[in-house]
Amino acid sequence: MFLYQHKVQFYETDLMGIVHHSNYLRFYEEARVAWAHDKKLLDYQRPESASHFAVYETQVRHLKPAFFGEDLEIEVQAKREGIRILFQYRMRARHEILSLAQTVHVSLNKELKLIRLPESYLKILEKEQWTETWL
Amino acid sequence: MFLYQHKVQFYETDLMGIVHHSNYLRFYEEARVAWAHDKKLLDYQRPESASHFAVYETQVRHLKPAFFGEDLEIEVQAKREGIRILFQYRMRARHEILSLAQTVHVSLNKELKLIRLPESYLKILEKEQWTETWL
Amino acid sequence: MFLYQHKVQFYETDLMGIVHHSNYLRFYEEARVAWAHDKKLLDYQRPESASHFAVYETQVRHLKPAFFGEDLEIEVQAKREGIRILFQYRMRARHEILSLAQTVHVSLNKELKLIRLPESYLKILEKEQWTETWL
Amino acid sequence: MFLYQHKVQFYETDLMGIVHHSNYLRFYEEARVAWAHDKKLLDYQRPESASHFAVYETQVRHLKPAFFGEDLEIEVQAKREGIRILFQYRMRARHEILSLAQTVHVSLNKELKLIRLPESYLKILEKEQWTETWL
Repeated sequence: MFLYQHKVQFYETDLMGIVHHSNYLRFYEEARVAWAHDKKLLDYQRPESASHFAVYETQVRHLKPAFFGEDLEIEVQAKREGIRILFQYRMRARHEILSLAQTVHVSLNKELKLIRLPESYLKILEKEQWTETWL
Repeated sequence: MFLYQHKVQFYETDLMGIVHHSNYLRFYEEARVAWAHDKKLLDYQRPESASHFAVYETQVRHLKPAFFGEDLEIEVQAKREGIRILFQYRMRARHEILSLAQTVHVSLNKELKLIRLPESYLKILEKEQWTETWL
Repeated sequence: MFLYQHKVQFYETDLMGIVHHSNYLRFYEEARVAWAHDKKLLDYQRPESASHFAVYETQVRHLKPAFFGEDLEIEVQAKREGIRILFQYRMRARHEILSLAQTVHVSLNKELKLIRLPESYLKILEKEQWTETWL
Repeated sequence: MFLYQHKVQFYETDLMGIVHHSNYLRFYEEARVAWAHDKKLLDYQRPESASHFAVYETQVRHLKPAFFGEDLEIEVQAKREGIRILFQYRMRARHEILSLAQTVHVSLNKELKLIRLPESYLKILEKEQWTETWL
């Protein structure tokens, strides 16, 4: 299982004293990009390679708040569904699950038009481990 | 139907030249806060009044990209579901629907513990118009 | 004098209960973009026109905090200094000055190389009113 | 010399394909917080301890752009000036200096009123190394 860590920064909190919910999508993006880079599906030198992960849908559930300075652990799992990639995420800190999420992605060309997933993605996604759904 | 407008700012775009998906949750929050302020359920002078809109779950669907400088129109509808408030949002620009979303909220006290929705909320939510679901 | 308004959003606050300082640069950018659009120096349809306002230096002074829901008023003044454009900003709310700032900009081409300011800019900047320095 | 690292995230870029300038203040805050935590002047469990680093003034110079996926190295130096703390920062990547910055901080109490720097800060700041100014 791919694991990603994020330390909560001061600027990610809001006036309730907890991490603002919009930042969870940023943490999950960090985890997804790290996963894709680890699988050699995303090349930082060619940022257009990120456009195979265009966001179609996001869903985030908040179970417990996250606080300034905490080290969040994010587990990632991915699978193919037709021309889409589905990611699920599980965020933990303080030996608890703080949040669960799912994001659905499609490939876009430079004109932002929908295209098929590249062959290299299909190969990687076939080999990925997918446990039961988390959400 | 409550309507909110947001002009896309330069700092809300990413290297694909479109609005970054995490910012949609910020636009939908702006619309929700404006709705709550309009109904006198949220008082800027007492920001703790915002804690009755603690985010339990978000879901955002992206149909078309949004671009720098565009004037986004966001329709809002709200209803009560037990101790939760459910919001739905429809974002338009260029005479098209760009995005649909739903967020689910609960009331928290100062210790971030779950409490019932205040009576004032129930009264407002009873009178709210809810058309068929948008997502 | 060009005037711009920004309402402070919930997501712009931090755990101290005030607007996070990094957001001031975003508010000042909003004001600068609105100024440039007003002068027809920036075309939202051609976002590359924004690259004539590449940021070389920023300086922000914080005199008083800004709070959730406040309507910030930002005054803008601009002048040319050789191949640079200099902007100054004065932010008010509650009949007080909250912040003063200055940003310095240069023109870049698509390869992010320094170029001269376009003629259209020089014409506009000649006509701009510049009072004494604010910082 | 204290050194901090930040990997540039996708959501930190803008439509020019580079890191948006407002994010530099966030990276410099990350470095400052890490420095203060390292010196035991900031306790994540007591986030109010961060209020001794209230921002009075920021100044950032941009020499070269920063790109998606880059590992930014930030050097930090700090010194006392009366009731203020002065930080300077030097950001590098690709064996070049990308940005230089200075931030000035003061201590605030819970009512956001100015107070003296705590004794523990003075002790740490006396021992800090300060080379010639970077800006």
